[in-house]
Amino acid sequence: MKSFREAITLNIPKRRAYINITPKVEECLKKSGVKEGLCLVNAMHITASVYINDNEPGLLQDYDDWLEKLAPHEPISQYRHNGYEDNGDAHLKRQIMGREVVVAITNGKLDFGPWEQIFYGEFDGKREKRILVKIIGE
Amino acid sequence: MKSFREAITLNIPKRRAYINITPKVEECLKKSGVKEGLCLVNAMHITASVYINDNEPGLLQDYDDWLEKLAPHEPISQYRHNGYEDNGDAHLKRQIMGREVVVAITNGKLDFGPWEQIFYGEFDGKREKRILVKIIGE
Amino acid sequence: MKSFREAITLNIPKRRAYINITPKVEECLKKSGVKEGLCLVNAMHITASVYINDNEPGLLQDYDDWLEKLAPHEPISQYRHNGYEDNGDAHLKRQIMGREVVVAITNGKLDFGPWEQIFYGEFDGKREKRILVKIIGE
Repeated sequence: MKSFREAITLNIPKRRAYINITPKVEECLKKSGVKEGLCLVNAMHITASVYINDNEPGLLQDYDDWLEKLAPHEPISQYRHNGYEDNGDAHLKRQIMGREVVVAITNGKLDFGPWEQIFYGEFDGKREKRILVKIIGE
Repeated sequence: MKSFREAITLNIPKRRAYINITPKVEECLKKSGVKEGLCLVNAMHITASVYINDNEPGLLQDYDDWLEKLAPHEPISQYRHNGYEDNGDAHLKRQIMGREVVVAITNGKLDFGPWEQIFYGEFDGKREKRILVKIIGE
Repeated sequence: MKSFREAITLNIPKRRAYINITPKVEECLKKSGVKEGLCLVNAMHITASVYINDNEPGLLQDYDDWLEKLAPHEPISQYRHNGYEDNGDAHLKRQIMGREVVVAITNGKLDFGPWEQIFYGEFDGKREKRILVKIIGE
């Protein structure tokens, strides 16, 4: 069994953003040399998500509007977590969108359906954050 | 390490439905010959979910009502994604229910708790969709 | 390839609670002897979650308030699932928080970001529940 590990570092200049990281994960897969196996991609921070969906700008805005409705950033006093912080909403938004994805590796490729792309969802940016890629297989 | 891959094809005649796919996944596991390992089951389409919960008709209706409340289909103009499409809500509902499940394989069986069943949640049906089953182990 | 399986049993004396199970998962990892691989941790019951987020009491209360807003326990008659049961809300809350986490194992450790902790989210307690830890790797 082979294993591979890399941390991707991002620094998003605004609070929230949705970034297509598929090319970065594909680079990791190539480096790993794994042909059959599983690829785990997870946010290493708890106010961010890794999820799979469409790379369509309208949808990214829909996600942002919807998450703000389900877990609004303001007033920040509505969250008990916000004693010394202002990111209570980010911990909630991240649960909706998820922490991680597990993607099948088949014939040395990410085994995707027609529109699947891996996104990093940032809900408390303006600082360095890491995404873990862990690959196991043969 | 063994690996196994199969795509299950479904064509749901209505927009939304919740289908128990556990028997199909069990068939895949049998074919794979894997006794100890992990089984990934994911929707290959981004307006559908694979999730684990109860096979109880009342609950399936509760999920549908609840998802319609959290991300209503209509008016379709509320979603920017709906320029040429009408499935903006489906991309949101799928995030609540999730893309994938990872199930332990122990002694050649899906290592389930008492009521766990694998479901395919369709949120934009009336077309052919695929579900990926990827199994690795020994 | 090595594999390891253990079920952790909990009995939460109240309906809802959020319990840090990281030390229990770390014990499993030590017993497994796996240095490189993947660790699956999932609720074996369908009214409970395993998720990763912050071990901060204010946040745990925020999660509880928020989940009650998105899927209130009462009136129990609002859920069709509640014919003979009163836990319809618990099946919904569990979908928001998720069933499982998959954690990378690197150098014999759970490969965590700075604040990641594994939690068991109970939404229908006062009875014995199990959490599955399955580890594969080398």
